Amino acid sequence: MEQSVTFSGWSNISSQPPGSVSLVGAGPGDPGLLTLVALRRLEEADAVFYDLLVDEAILKLAKHARMVCVGKRASTHTMAQAQIHAELVAAAQRSERVVRLKGGDPFMFGRGGEEIDALGDAGIKWEVVPGISAALGAAASCGIPLTHRDHAQSCRFVTGHRRNGLSNLSWALHGDEDETLVIYMGIGEASAIVEALLAAGRSPMTPVAVVENATRLSERCVRTVLSALPLTLKETGIKPPSLLFIGSIAGHYPKGELASS
Amino acid sequence: MEQSVTFSGWSNISSQPPGSVSLVGAGPGDPGLLTLVALRRLEEADAVFYDLLVDEAILKLAKHARMVCVGKRASTHTMAQAQIHAELVAAAQRSERVVRLKGGDPFMFGRGGEEIDALGDAGIKWEVVPGISAALGAAASCGIPLTHRDHAQSCRFVTGHRRNGLSNLSWALHGDEDETLVIYMGIGEASAIVEALLAAGRSPMTPVAVVENATRLSERCVRTVLSALPLTLKETGIKPPSLLFIGSIAGHYPKGELASS
Repeated sequence: MEQSVTFSGWSNISSQPPGSVSLVGAGPGDPGLLTLVALRRLEEADAVFYDLLVDEAILKLAKHARMVCVGKRASTHTMAQAQIHAELVAAAQRSERVVRLKGGDPFMFGRGGEEIDALGDAGIKWEVVPGISAALGAAASCGIPLTHRDHAQSCRFVTGHRRNGLSNLSWALHGDEDETLVIYMGIGEASAIVEALLAAGRSPMTPVAVVENATRLSERCVRTVLSALPLTLKETGIKPPSLLFIGSIAGHYPKGELASS
Repeated sequence: MEQSVTFSGWSNISSQPPGSVSLVGAGPGDPGLLTLVALRRLEEADAVFYDLLVDEAILKLAKHARMVCVGKRASTHTMAQAQIHAELVAAAQRSERVVRLKGGDPFMFGRGGEEIDALGDAGIKWEVVPGISAALGAAASCGIPLTHRDHAQSCRFVTGHRRNGLSNLSWALHGDEDETLVIYMGIGEASAIVEALLAAGRSPMTPVAVVENATRLSERCVRTVLSALPLTLKETGIKPPSLLFIGSIAGHYPKGELASS
């Protein structure tokens, strides 16, 4: 039942080998939140397959790469997942250094798991370079701790977009007041989410923070409460990509933040 | 009930202002996983207050800063939290550019929330630079997707170290098979965690991955199942800092990973 793997470390990989695919997390938006390894991978890439949400300033760091946009925006998938897999495999088979650049982190709602499965099946070597997931970026820029001794002892990340819709999400399990619930891609489903959480016993006065375009110049953070969320979204006109932070910590307003001064 | 904050973006902050504190996430271990902003903050810092777990190669990036180690290792707190607050405030009041360097991400089990509260109360300006949380780093380096279309639709981060012990952790809520459960700092409490999860209805055969020293040269990833976890820990001698990944995805072995080849 056991298997031990020793890791050689990204620092020791001077360059990505030709004929391999690096799944790189581009972080939440701000190019300054790219990791040092991600920057190196982009600079050396022969081909970059990128998501629509990745900032243009980040794309420009791939100085000599062929750039391929593969989607995706909410329900508009520019390229089907199976086709993305085929293109990544084909590029690696041409001995290119291939970067698959994804918003946030490749393994947090990024479908990176499916891509490494497809690459492995095709005999292509891969690696994953983690990125700052949108929730961590938004939390930092808005001053919303995901955990806090006085507010939240744990946090839970779910998505509003699910293969079988919201119905199979165990909303009844989300009744823990001692936890920060972060919902990715939940704006379009906000009314159904609110209804389900209230039915699961969450208080209508549960604090909610909505963060639109996290860490970008256009970032907006709006605070409300659970029962007022649909109205707040309507009045503010907040659009995807946005995150919902639900729980006590969303009602905690820290003082003295540099960026908001 | 609403408040809107516009964010100026880290990219536009050329330098950290003197007399302020930047809470910087150092990431999981590998210096290559530092963000570009974190690197800039370290290079410009006058004083760096760092946790024990931060890699020496990262500390060396703070070329002209006064370096202060403030702990912490499991139950050995080198400096009490209140004293850390006082030192950060005092350094900022001396008009220093102060960096509070934390392993992983400052807002994910990093007590960053308490520190910004203390700074705000003292009238000190602060910012938070997010980091790659240990779970994201370990997931990437070990090829364990936190979410996966066929395995996990959500993920939950909890800690084994809690103010009131394990008793107030709602283990009964952790029975969702469709979710990846990540436990930080859970090695010392593994037997109690296993017992609680089994009592909550999780299968004894639930896959578990244990990752020690994530993203460092000394990283180890060991796979087992829930009921065998205490024995596995004993046999392998795995020590903190380690993470537990519990759920279907921990039993999924991707092929073709570069680093393990």
